[in-house]
Amino acid sequence: MKILLTNDDGIYAHGLGALYRELSGDFEVVVVAPETEMSAVGHAITLDSPLRVRDVYKNGSFFGYGVSGTPADCVKIAVEELLEIPPDLIISGINLGANVGVNVLYSGTVSAATEGAFLGIRSAAISLDTLKAPDFGFAARFSREIIGFIIENDLKKGTALNVNIPAIPEERIKGISFTRQGTRRQKEKFESRIDPRGNVYYWLSAEIPVEDEAVDSDIRALRERRITITPITYDLTCRKEMERLQSLPPPDYKV
Amino acid sequence: MKILLTNDDGIYAHGLGALYRELSGDFEVVVVAPETEMSAVGHAITLDSPLRVRDVYKNGSFFGYGVSGTPADCVKIAVEELLEIPPDLIISGINLGANVGVNVLYSGTVSAATEGAFLGIRSAAISLDTLKAPDFGFAARFSREIIGFIIENDLKKGTALNVNIPAIPEERIKGISFTRQGTRRQKEKFESRIDPRGNVYYWLSAEIPVEDEAVDSDIRALRERRITITPITYDLTCRKEMERLQSLPPPDYKV
Repeated sequence: MKILLTNDDGIYAHGLGALYRELSGDFEVVVVAPETEMSAVGHAITLDSPLRVRDVYKNGSFFGYGVSGTPADCVKIAVEELLEIPPDLIISGINLGANVGVNVLYSGTVSAATEGAFLGIRSAAISLDTLKAPDFGFAARFSREIIGFIIENDLKKGTALNVNIPAIPEERIKGISFTRQGTRRQKEKFESRIDPRGNVYYWLSAEIPVEDEAVDSDIRALRERRITITPITYDLTCRKEMERLQSLPPPDYKV
Repeated sequence: MKILLTNDDGIYAHGLGALYRELSGDFEVVVVAPETEMSAVGHAITLDSPLRVRDVYKNGSFFGYGVSGTPADCVKIAVEELLEIPPDLIISGINLGANVGVNVLYSGTVSAATEGAFLGIRSAAISLDTLKAPDFGFAARFSREIIGFIIENDLKKGTALNVNIPAIPEERIKGISFTRQGTRRQKEKFESRIDPRGNVYYWLSAEIPVEDEAVDSDIRALRERRITITPITYDLTCRKEMERLQSLPPPDYKV
């Protein structure tokens, strides 16, 4: 089985290395990842500039391909150009930091998996809920379980799994939940500062209000020390609202 | 009524100017748009660098705020920082080029509307199906109808309208369809070239195979010269697959 590994923290990130070490002994593993960090790029792709692909070595041996683009670019160029045969599976991660709630929209890690699903390849994004001093050991081992689960249960084409793992000793993890993406609004604010030349600039800061989230949401389950698995799609249509609109008189276009 | 205008083609784009001229006589209009072109940035947001906001003038009078970020950044900073009272409505566009099918995922224009929906503000993205010599006149006038439709029919919170308009004389437009997002895979390929220094680089090219698309999809309806209106959401959960997975034994996490 051939597995494509990618991420949004860049090809030198430890989370990707942990995944590689865990899986490369038993699977045919190919790494195609952004050359530099590409967090929060969402589902961006590169159209206005060409992509460069560079061989990346670690400890003196070939590790993978570094791409001058986004995670979605990496998946596209891997599948359409670099690999002769498409991979059987795409794993994106292990991301430093959770990807839950509406943050999923901004996540390069998740968009790589969504892109994979769109290309007809079973895909998962794996994220670890911490921003510091990460131990990727358990998350890397758990990625094997995710791979097995996807294959055994024949994950529906066009969906990808968004997996989030609490960053606590594994014996304290409370279990696994199949969740839905949280949808509550974050508490966001911009902090304005003055640069040395007297000009204003803004930093975005945001915080997810966990208490508002539904019990079956990824945000709540992760906070309750559970591993969350959310199946996500690339079809953004709101079917319910579509059906309602279809029953209404459309706007006039003879304007 | 206060309307926020934004786009992904940048604050100097003609499509945004056409929208402004059409609406600013009758509504309180505020423009907050990227300083430079931000096509295909998807739902990217700027976290690693601060945002700058600059007053932009056109023909000697104040036109709007140019932001050194993405369309989603523009909506966030407009709503959370620049405007004292949130807008009643957000219109993103008029985009040069259609945003239908899976391209919706990559679209900065659409992500601005999705971001608006997520912030609880009724929003629409408007795109014109041409890449050259655009006449934005009809699309700008039609945006009034969209505004009226959203208000009258109380568009569901958390959804945004993705509107696409054929670039043909208005008398040849065949009608309006409430559609779903097309989901067929594009025919994509990478073209490799050699730069003057002998290094390889890649350009992405893609084409939507219209014939494969469902009759009620945005792609088909637009090709049949109809205006398409697709309600879209920021909840990526695939509910059907979630329910199926919940009936299965989860993967083992004692690994």
